[in-house]
Amino acid sequence: MIAVDAMGGDFAPRAIVQGAYQAAIKGIPILLCGDEDQIIAILNSISVDSKEIWPSLPISIHHTTQIISMGAEPSKSVLQENDSSLVQAVRSVAQGKAQAVVSAGNSGAALVAGTLILQRVDGILRPAIGSFLPTKSSSIFCIDIGANTDCKPEYLEQFALMGHIYVSMIKNKARPRIALLSNGAEPYKGSQSVKQAYDLLIKSKLNFVGNLEPREIFDDQADVIVCDGFTGNIMLKTVQGTAKAMVYWIDQERKKSLWHSIGLLLSKGLFKGLKQKIDYAKKGGALLFGVQHPLIIAHGCSNATAIENAILYAQSVVDNQIISRFNAQLADYLSAQGITDSYIAAQRAQSFDQQQL
Amino acid sequence: MIAVDAMGGDFAPRAIVQGAYQAAIKGIPILLCGDEDQIIAILNSISVDSKEIWPSLPISIHHTTQIISMGAEPSKSVLQENDSSLVQAVRSVAQGKAQAVVSAGNSGAALVAGTLILQRVDGILRPAIGSFLPTKSSSIFCIDIGANTDCKPEYLEQFALMGHIYVSMIKNKARPRIALLSNGAEPYKGSQSVKQAYDLLIKSKLNFVGNLEPREIFDDQADVIVCDGFTGNIMLKTVQGTAKAMVYWIDQERKKSLWHSIGLLLSKGLFKGLKQKIDYAKKGGALLFGVQHPLIIAHGCSNATAIENAILYAQSVVDNQIISRFNAQLADYLSAQGITDSYIAAQRAQSFDQQQL
Repeated sequence: MIAVDAMGGDFAPRAIVQGAYQAAIKGIPILLCGDEDQIIAILNSISVDSKEIWPSLPISIHHTTQIISMGAEPSKSVLQENDSSLVQAVRSVAQGKAQAVVSAGNSGAALVAGTLILQRVDGILRPAIGSFLPTKSSSIFCIDIGANTDCKPEYLEQFALMGHIYVSMIKNKARPRIALLSNGAEPYKGSQSVKQAYDLLIKSKLNFVGNLEPREIFDDQADVIVCDGFTGNIMLKTVQGTAKAMVYWIDQERKKSLWHSIGLLLSKGLFKGLKQKIDYAKKGGALLFGVQHPLIIAHGCSNATAIENAILYAQSVVDNQIISRFNAQLADYLSAQGITDSYIAAQRAQSFDQQQL
Repeated sequence: MIAVDAMGGDFAPRAIVQGAYQAAIKGIPILLCGDEDQIIAILNSISVDSKEIWPSLPISIHHTTQIISMGAEPSKSVLQENDSSLVQAVRSVAQGKAQAVVSAGNSGAALVAGTLILQRVDGILRPAIGSFLPTKSSSIFCIDIGANTDCKPEYLEQFALMGHIYVSMIKNKARPRIALLSNGAEPYKGSQSVKQAYDLLIKSKLNFVGNLEPREIFDDQADVIVCDGFTGNIMLKTVQGTAKAMVYWIDQERKKSLWHSIGLLLSKGLFKGLKQKIDYAKKGGALLFGVQHPLIIAHGCSNATAIENAILYAQSVVDNQIISRFNAQLADYLSAQGITDSYIAAQRAQSFDQQQL
């Protein structure tokens, strides 16, 4: 069963319910969390135009009375709006009613709800969002792409570890190459936090290949790129913006010349494929790493197809036990290094004591 | 006279000297700073293949004995290598021998040399690098794109002011729209520093239009985008990387289908134009704002044409008195607000005293 935040997203609830309906037709059991009357009205209207009426599909509804808006302040809203569609959807996974949750709503709030309700893996300082970006001949796993705007070097070190484990698991690579996103290849390049993370990663047992400039992210020089959530998010959105602008300029140029028009008409299929390659919204969403259960953060602008894809992705994560296998390996790594929540708390207390001396 | 750091850059000294020679043919007086023997040998070899022999051109040489390498630690090398080509080139401007300086060498060192030797404008906390990026129907001025990796909110506020002055001067716009680069439009989105800068800019007299996501940088929603140098650099290099990757993928697809091949052959001119639009290396370099004299930071990978363009750009900055006019306006703005170095020092002392209480 996949829990879906029916009220979260720019086109919620209609696009979300429609996407859930499409996934249910493919046999995926869905728990729609949101306003029951609205959800039923949408499901009824979809059923009219479709062969399958919704009561015959594996769809359950969990009625909720609150909505966390896209512009709401994340922590405050999660703590105060306990009967929101988001909080209830996440809670259904923590309680074992569902095995994964999908939300296209306020991503900051989804992150807070995921961290507080699904709980962090013991010893993990900050959960992080990870996603693959296509490269010239393969793909690169970017972590964090939006969960943590300000990162201490130790957070980046843990993102690198999570990237290592995930990519070695998914791509069956023993020692994936880990790079650090920076503004230059030299060790002295980068923000203070990036420079200190460089020093930590050089000393780690990971296959750290140094700093990587975003000019080279598509060049298959690394399997994982580690970044703070602010910069990672800026990088991914710049990729999207540039791709969109290039398609726009190509179209503008086409209008200027008949030959260009004919040329582009002949190579139309090419551009369709290219657009899909870059438009990572099509993939549905990104996983949150470092928490106990699968949470998929879908794009706010998700349409029904994107939501359907996010749900299919969530189901494949569940079927392949991705998060439980990932967490088991992560726990092994952390415990081998003696890193637990209580160890970290003790370290912090010690450092506080030293500052007082 | 334009001072040129002949020894700085991936292809130095040959590409630099060649570029300077080309600019000198166009009548621009050049002061080449670097190893005299090497420079003369290159100039001689160029003269052999060319109509113009170099002694007939307006080229002077200032012999220097040290080189700051691309990988050297910026502050240390500038302070220790006083007879380096970079330091001497910058010094020649401070001494009035030349009116602007171009360097494709270690950009961190160029920045340190610019700040220390050319001196900050009174009241400016940190000089910043600014450059235009093409947009769908115009361009957007990005500041800072690499000078300051870690920025306090007050630095970002001053970058906004410098962007405002420069764009209103260059584009003759009374109130250019100023945006802040962030991971979301909402005021609560962004790193700590960006969020605090948002609060400062909302209160300022500038035409602040809020946060801008990089998905929308090409959409003409703002005239200036303010960012810290780390994120700005990541954004610009991601634009370059994405454009390069798209051109690569188009070429790969072309090889798969005869129709695509023919199509792309017909629209070849289109892609050439597009590549030039995005490849901002062609423009030669970017200006440093907030110092007393013009310093142009060229790309490390500059070839001779890029250096020639950077020198032509430097000459146009001198001819149009860009930096002196800019600095006069900046001084007016700052003094109207009572902001000077001594005011800032007094503020800092006060805040230090308060922390001690």
